[in-house]
Amino acid sequence: MATAVTHRMRKFLNDPADLVRESLAGLAAAHGDVLRYDAQNKILLRVDAPVAGKVGLVSAGGSGVEPLHGGFVGLGMLDAACPGEIFTSPNPDQILAATEAVDAGAGVLYVIKNFPGEVMNFKLVAMDAKDEGIAVESVVINDDVAIADADRRRGIGATVLVEKITGAAAERGDDLQAVAAIGRRVNERARSIGVGLSSCAPPAHGKPIFDLPPGEIEFGIGISGEPGARRETMRSARDIAAEMLETVLSDLRPADGAQVLAMVSGLGGTPLIELYLMYGEIERGLRDAGLAPARKLVGNYITSLEMAGAALTVLELDEELTGLWDAPVHTAALRWGA
Amino acid sequence: MATAVTHRMRKFLNDPADLVRESLAGLAAAHGDVLRYDAQNKILLRVDAPVAGKVGLVSAGGSGVEPLHGGFVGLGMLDAACPGEIFTSPNPDQILAATEAVDAGAGVLYVIKNFPGEVMNFKLVAMDAKDEGIAVESVVINDDVAIADADRRRGIGATVLVEKITGAAAERGDDLQAVAAIGRRVNERARSIGVGLSSCAPPAHGKPIFDLPPGEIEFGIGISGEPGARRETMRSARDIAAEMLETVLSDLRPADGAQVLAMVSGLGGTPLIELYLMYGEIERGLRDAGLAPARKLVGNYITSLEMAGAALTVLELDEELTGLWDAPVHTAALRWGA
Repeated sequence: MATAVTHRMRKFLNDPADLVRESLAGLAAAHGDVLRYDAQNKILLRVDAPVAGKVGLVSAGGSGVEPLHGGFVGLGMLDAACPGEIFTSPNPDQILAATEAVDAGAGVLYVIKNFPGEVMNFKLVAMDAKDEGIAVESVVINDDVAIADADRRRGIGATVLVEKITGAAAERGDDLQAVAAIGRRVNERARSIGVGLSSCAPPAHGKPIFDLPPGEIEFGIGISGEPGARRETMRSARDIAAEMLETVLSDLRPADGAQVLAMVSGLGGTPLIELYLMYGEIERGLRDAGLAPARKLVGNYITSLEMAGAALTVLELDEELTGLWDAPVHTAALRWGA
Repeated sequence: MATAVTHRMRKFLNDPADLVRESLAGLAAAHGDVLRYDAQNKILLRVDAPVAGKVGLVSAGGSGVEPLHGGFVGLGMLDAACPGEIFTSPNPDQILAATEAVDAGAGVLYVIKNFPGEVMNFKLVAMDAKDEGIAVESVVINDDVAIADADRRRGIGATVLVEKITGAAAERGDDLQAVAAIGRRVNERARSIGVGLSSCAPPAHGKPIFDLPPGEIEFGIGISGEPGARRETMRSARDIAAEMLETVLSDLRPADGAQVLAMVSGLGGTPLIELYLMYGEIERGLRDAGLAPARKLVGNYITSLEMAGAALTVLELDEELTGLWDAPVHTAALRWGA
């Protein structure tokens, strides 16, 4: 029974079936200057969408990973976000409605995380959109090095960076092909790894998704509450950070002395005091590896409900990507220069 | 043994005794454009402090409540923050060092939360500062309506608003008396209440501060991990929000139709999806009470380590306070217009 679940779980909830809808309405109420919630189509739209002459950016994905994606709708980032239920892909109708709502004639870029259901849904909708005469391009993000086979790698932290940087490219007037090419470049130059220190409990499920015995942690965790690639023993922050960095850098292989952007994102239940401690470890490790941490982002940017833990994303910058990163942005979760 | 505690607790930690220092260093590494960490004096300073001609703003308090206060050091907010150990007041030497570091001849405003130890420390230092010829004024914040006796009320969420608004007043060039008067006005027009859905575990302590049986919550919680004013039964978000709002508004008694700023701050362990749902409930309640939610802030702004829960702060705005709220700010945790 819904009420019993709510009470047992001690979350801020009414009927768990209403969680996503009510939270989206709250997001729109809090940030009405930035976005609006189209409840009928279950999508979030930039308040001034469609923006004349600008490529439209659309992302989609299960809820429970906030602020992704709704928190990144606004000036200089996404034009629309299509949220599914908790850890569940949205349906194609939502994506098509978003595509139609943001297209201003310059075409639409889909920012897609490499999950089979999400990729398939976007593919289906892209065909419909093209039938309607809307030009569509896609960037498929697969930065999660927890998975060895790059074709099967999930899109996780790099999604935030692709959304920011393609958003800036679209804002400055790049055409659809150019914006897509920049998005693919960001994906190619970024890698991520996540570490979970606890499970999380989807409200409709009523209990934690997996059991994590005392003294163990999940290395290589995704963003849908699933366990990691392997279970490891709890260690010091310094040791965990070193393993995360080694895992990311051995795959990314950045140039000696490269400028990088480092993001340490909490998974939802880890407080800032720990995230900044981890960032300190990561920054030292980057410098020891001969890299220059030129841009930094620490906080809850891509999460798994109240899971404790953190994910590291490293992006090898170049001059253009740095400039696009620094360009003004005004969304619920990321804001500067505006 | 420190290592054993770390492993059992599954937090990102090295030696728990180093947590605060290492986290502050990480904060400074991540936000070197905004602030610097003076490790010798254990204080955080605005990167360009002292700022010529400007009143300096200093705050202080136990760690574990991040982003308060360090996350609010920067343009348009604090000039210095003095962090103590977890849930422990800093010592007077830190505050005196901060006072000397930020004074540029226009005097220094102390933003003090009404905890006996914190008030006493600031009083002691104020005498030393005056002996050194530094003009000092204080704002003591006591917005927590969980405590009936206003003289004993703690400073919680309103601290964020006082720091932002006095910071803007100092930035525009107001003199010390004027900045202090604006800070007191914000405190008089703001009330807060916090609800805890879990306890939290200070690393050096090694276990949760209090036990919370299933199905129960703490109403009227502070920011040092202590239990709330009373224990209540877990209920729907709608019911909890209504009780929080009633508690705040019955004490604040804002004018009919008043414009208000509403802040819903997570306590550290509650994800954004729940905070936005709560904000939606709060906004509806404010409108039903005939008030106009004109400014909104939702996220983790004043916390208690990884405690689950949220606090509500309502500030009755006026034209000047709204303008100062909207003025540019560039800190780790709050940024706009810059």
